[in-house]
Parts: sequence; C-alpha cells; structure tokens
Amino acid sequence: MIWFEGRLSEGGTIPLEAGDRGLLLGDGVFETIGVFNRIPFALAAHLSSLSAAAKELGFEVPRAAVARAIDDLLAVMTGPHAAIRVTVSRGAGPRGLLPPADPRPVVLASLAPWSPALAFQPVTLATVSLRRNETSPLSRLKTLAYLDNVLALAEAKRAGADDALMLNTRGAVASTAMANLFAVVDGRLVTPPVADGVRPGIMRACLIERAGAVERCLDLGEIVAAPLFLTNSLRLLSPVAALDGRALPPVPPRFAILVGEACGLRSGV
Amino acid sequence: MIWFEGRLSEGGTIPLEAGDRGLLLGDGVFETIGVFNRIPFALAAHLSSLSAAAKELGFEVPRAAVARAIDDLLAVMTGPHAAIRVTVSRGAGPRGLLPPADPRPVVLASLAPWSPALAFQPVTLATVSLRRNETSPLSRLKTLAYLDNVLALAEAKRAGADDALMLNTRGAVASTAMANLFAVVDGRLVTPPVADGVRPGIMRACLIERAGAVERCLDLGEIVAAPLFLTNSLRLLSPVAALDGRALPPVPPRFAILVGEACGLRSGV
Repeated sequence: MIWFEGRLSEGGTIPLEAGDRGLLLGDGVFETIGVFNRIPFALAAHLSSLSAAAKELGFEVPRAAVARAIDDLLAVMTGPHAAIRVTVSRGAGPRGLLPPADPRPVVLASLAPWSPALAFQPVTLATVSLRRNETSPLSRLKTLAYLDNVLALAEAKRAGADDALMLNTRGAVASTAMANLFAVVDGRLVTPPVADGVRPGIMRACLIERAGAVERCLDLGEIVAAPLFLTNSLRLLSPVAALDGRALPPVPPRFAILVGEACGLRSGV
Repeated sequence: MIWFEGRLSEGGTIPLEAGDRGLLLGDGVFETIGVFNRIPFALAAHLSSLSAAAKELGFEVPRAAVARAIDDLLAVMTGPHAAIRVTVSRGAGPRGLLPPADPRPVVLASLAPWSPALAFQPVTLATVSLRRNETSPLSRLKTLAYLDNVLALAEAKRAGADDALMLNTRGAVASTAMANLFAVVDGRLVTPPVADGVRPGIMRACLIERAGAVERCLDLGEIVAAPLFLTNSLRLLSPVAALDGRALPPVPPRFAILVGEACGLRSGV
C-alpha cells in the first residue's frame, strides 16, 4: 500500500515532479518503522530522526503530512504487524546542484508486510572494501543517496555473506550496510560512536539506554573473535554467526530478550 | 522539456513506479550533455560513460530508449544550444536494499536552455571538510546518489565561494563538487587520477588527449599558488580566480581556446 501526497493506492505509479531532487540527486531522507501488534515502535523517535536528517540537509519535513501518511496506512493494515517506510524528498528544483531557496518537500510512504520470522535471525558478515565516509553527514543519516549501502551489501553477497561489515576511512569498525553493530568486549557491550560514520539507529539507542551499551571506537582486531550482534528497526536483533567465514561465540540471550520486550514481541533467541 | 519512457512533455509530473530504486535509494546513473550549435558534444563518450556507470552498479542501460530520448529532445530544440540530462534509474524493486534479479531500468531525460555566458566563467573555490570517498565506486561515477556533492557545494557557498575543493580521505586533491580540476605545476598540466576519487569527465578526457595533461596525485600544498582551472560539460573550462580567499595566478589561455575549439565555440578567455 502506497501513500503519496495525500492519496492511498495499492501501488503502481506516483505522479512525481520531473525535477524532483530526491530522484535526480538523492536529495531527501527516509525512515523505516516497524509496526508490531498494530503499534508503530518508537514512532516519536523515528519522526525526530527524520526531521533532524532533513534539517541537516537544510529543509523541513512536512510533519502534518508525514503524520497523516502514517495514520492513513495504519488505518488500512490488515494483519497485526507491518513495515512502514516514510520517504521525504526535498521536492523539485531548478537544474543543477543548488537547492531552491523555498523547497516544497514531497512525502511518499509505503506499508509492507512484516513477519516475526524476520526478527532475531542469525546472519553472517563479510568485511568489504567500501568504507563508510565519516567526513560526510550522509554516513550518519538515512538519505535517498543510499547507494553506498547497496554496493557494500552486493560486495558482501558476492563473498557469500548476508551483510557487509563496513569500516570507516580511518579503518575503525563502523556498522554493516543494513544495521548498527554491537560487540561484547571484555564483558562490556560496545558500539561504535556516531562520529565514526554510524547512523544513530532507534534500536541502537534502545540498547544504549536499556542495556548500558557504551559508545567507543572499535578496531577490527577487537571484534574478530567477540560475540557480535546487529540492530535494525525491522530485523530487530541479529546475532552474527560468522565474520569473514570464521564462527563467532554466541551472544548472551539477554539482549534479544530486552529488544523483544521493548517491541512487545517474544524474542526468538 | 521532459522525455519520460517514450513521451515528451513540457515538464510537470512523470508517472514513476512507487518502488523506483532511483528515488528510494539513489540507485541509478546520469549524464549531462552540452548541445552546442545543435550538436551534442562528445555524445558517444557520454553514452559510453552512462553505460559503464550502470554496468558498475550491475544493470544495463536501455540504449535504444536513451538514443530515442536524445533524438526526440534534439528535434524540439528551438535555439542553437541546450543542456540535456539523461537519467537512468534501475527501476522498481521489492522492499530493501537488494536489487531485483531482472531489473527494468527507466529513462528520464530533460532539455534545458544553455547560454555561452555559462562557459569560461572564472570561479572561486573553498576547501571543504567533506572528503571524496575514493574507496567507493560512487566517487568515480555520476549516480543518483549525488547528495555528497550537494552538501559539499553548500559548504563552499557558506564560505562565500562558488564551488567546493574536495580532498579525498587520504588528503589528496580530488575535484570540486561540480567539476574536474587541473593545475599547472612546474609548467606541466596535471589532474588527479580517477583512483583518487575523481569522475573521468568527458572534458577532462579532452584535455588529457589534446593538451597532454598528466594524471598524478596532487597535494593541496602544490596547488595553493598554482594556476588552476575546472572542466565540466556545461561550464566547459572555468579558471579558478581564488582558492580559500587567496588569488591565484592566471591560467594560460591556450587551454580555454582548445576547449572552445573542441566544442565548436569561441573561447571567452
């Protein structure tokens, strides 16, 4: 189900301005929100994240339109669970890179099925050559210029893994193409800081708050034999079974239990 | 004037699939082509560049559709000059980062006015904090994930300059947000190599071929007091008047004359 500029449809096409900067330049932002038992998880945090990302790009999210999109999609949900993606483009502009002085952002939202089978699934990682560019705000934001993540994931798939472990340009561990990363190092739960080229994900914030995870720079050497897991708004918590073909120790079950409880779902771990 | 999937229109909206990966993820490529005296400059090279970029992303450009788009736009040109942008999105896909196995790319092209007044204009540069990520193929390709260039340009504008001098993550000089960069160092014309996070622009290739420009890594220290110019398919050759507020020596006029001749235009320098 699609919501575009006030209209619901079963999919198909949307009437997009030909000069839309989201399409032409990746100039826009998005969020992906899990809806569990008909409740959008951490909705306020997702909306803040969306607005903050747009602000960093220099435009305002039309909050009333986004709220209506989510309401309208929730109203037509059939099952208990769903995934909502909210996309906000800066809208149309004149030719070239410079944004218009008075942008008219455009809202597109979609509702897709979500199954508990997606959550808590173990994954394998491959370290990829494509680095996260911590000098760019884009490394910390969910923008429509998301192609680096697509390419990193493709590189990992070619190596036979499920997701890509991405270092930053200084060689520090950052995240995967699809998720935030946590390691248990010397008995402490650790996750790389946002300044290392990491998105401040909602589930990541949940673990910092509820599990006392510490933000600090991580070297690859520290995590090659550590219990690792990923967090993501739709996959929730994914234990890393292997990194670059080498099996990793199991993740203590308490983290998945905590995430499951936060989302109102039973942990599958 | 807009061409979308076989239809010409005066602008307005295009019927884009709601799941279009160009819009949602920046998953597509583009080229900008100058049309001078009704002749698209270096058209074959632009089309090769478009196809090569798509191939690097893992899909094929629908060449017949692109050729028809350009033909149709040229047929409705009113003046002698124009700028054509050809955009090819990978097309719609299922939710998530993974591309469909059998993509159906979508072609959008636009025709805009172009004036000789755009060419050979001097510019000022500011060195920006946002680095080009030479570990990513995107640093070498014109993709729809172009937001880093938008942000770099915005940073330069805030510093009062016309364009952004971008270093790569190792600190080598790469390019500007909008153009390739050339320096005259010790009497030789030098431009950074593609491996340093540089797009192999068509006008850049023209200067390598016709002016014997050499590709080599450039340190910022080498260019802060050197004659510098930029090349770009629509601005052609732009002498750099100042870098970070410091005036630079004049560029020998032969390079602009050469570019003007190649394009069938008189150099304004």
